[in-house]
Amino acid sequence: MQGTAPTDPTPPQPAAYTPTDRTVPTRAAHKASYDKDLVHAILDEGYVCHLGFVRDGAPVVLPTLYGRVGERLYVHGSTGSRPLHAAGRAAPGLPVCLTVTHVDGLVLARSAFHHSVNYRSVVVHGLAHQVTDPGEKREALDALVDHVVPGRSRDSRPANKKELAATAVIRLDLDEVSAKVRTGGVNEEPEDLALPHWAGVLPLRKGYDAPVPEPDLAPGTALPDYLAAL
Amino acid sequence: MQGTAPTDPTPPQPAAYTPTDRTVPTRAAHKASYDKDLVHAILDEGYVCHLGFVRDGAPVVLPTLYGRVGERLYVHGSTGSRPLHAAGRAAPGLPVCLTVTHVDGLVLARSAFHHSVNYRSVVVHGLAHQVTDPGEKREALDALVDHVVPGRSRDSRPANKKELAATAVIRLDLDEVSAKVRTGGVNEEPEDLALPHWAGVLPLRKGYDAPVPEPDLAPGTALPDYLAAL
Repeated sequence: MQGTAPTDPTPPQPAAYTPTDRTVPTRAAHKASYDKDLVHAILDEGYVCHLGFVRDGAPVVLPTLYGRVGERLYVHGSTGSRPLHAAGRAAPGLPVCLTVTHVDGLVLARSAFHHSVNYRSVVVHGLAHQVTDPGEKREALDALVDHVVPGRSRDSRPANKKELAATAVIRLDLDEVSAKVRTGGVNEEPEDLALPHWAGVLPLRKGYDAPVPEPDLAPGTALPDYLAAL
Repeated sequence: MQGTAPTDPTPPQPAAYTPTDRTVPTRAAHKASYDKDLVHAILDEGYVCHLGFVRDGAPVVLPTLYGRVGERLYVHGSTGSRPLHAAGRAAPGLPVCLTVTHVDGLVLARSAFHHSVNYRSVVVHGLAHQVTDPGEKREALDALVDHVVPGRSRDSRPANKKELAATAVIRLDLDEVSAKVRTGGVNEEPEDLALPHWAGVLPLRKGYDAPVPEPDLAPGTALPDYLAAL
């Protein structure tokens, strides 16, 4: 600000989430991490999360798009959809669990027991709240579009009044969060090493195939740079 | 059987699951399907499912491997893991929701509102039961390994007594099941068609990179055909 001494406007944030009973795994605890940068990277690489909530005492897990703004996750949907409607009614917020998983490779051991996958996952526990502030709602919707393709929200028509009214957005703060990561090669019992079975990792390929344009693009519409770069 | 007239040993199965209140979506009902072949295909293509259960009244969603034998799904884990332990104690079975999702492409519309992804998902509701029959448990563990790479269970050392004792397996019958599929191009408002934004689908690439063998394979161990074929 003009006329004030230069200060750091953002106080330093802790680099890790605080573990809780729910985010400390009962097994393979060495795979768990609470590092914020790792959590953000895993979240930002995903396209859909799996959102869990409780309905009539039973769990429901639905795949859905999401977006991140700092330490806030946003999920959107029709105002009539079950979890979004429920989050609007639940007084303290709707208890949810939001999970994002990347499978990076298939791990083939000589023993059936040690077969596994290399993966990176994030599990977020918390209360989801419906977003009512119009400014936050617009920011959340931009984040949802930019989560699909970074930079895309600036190159599309923003939601109009009718679309905003038809869309519910819920927020889940990144607070009770853990990541879990398995990387590397095969675990094996020493006595299995001499077995004649092939063992190793089959990496899954990631990437994109060539974009498929709509047949009715406005004349002269070129593939934007942010897509060509992918 | 010898001495009996030839009969069809397997009575014809219905080709579709019966919709229930939980499996009829509140919106986009045209994307829902109860076709068994479609459900099986989506399940068989996945590597991890997202398994939801309720713990202390709150939802928990964890990624985990799974396998399918006909109309039965199997999930395994340490006997100490929370859902597997809970499934062993819950009298009528543990209420779970098991979801498998494939993201096939990113759908970029001229309007932010119509951005989407092409996807195929299966959601299974039901009660999970711990598998106690040793024969069924072995069959389930084979299915779990063959789900990662078809044919692999025959080319690895089966679980020994100690490993079997350390592994819990739960079963979830395919009964209350639905699939949901979005394919094709962009939905757009007619008045947006003249906008200068690029619109179309960015397909996600699927496949494998070159296998990475363990450095200590037994001499002469070749890459098996079932991996080379991938």
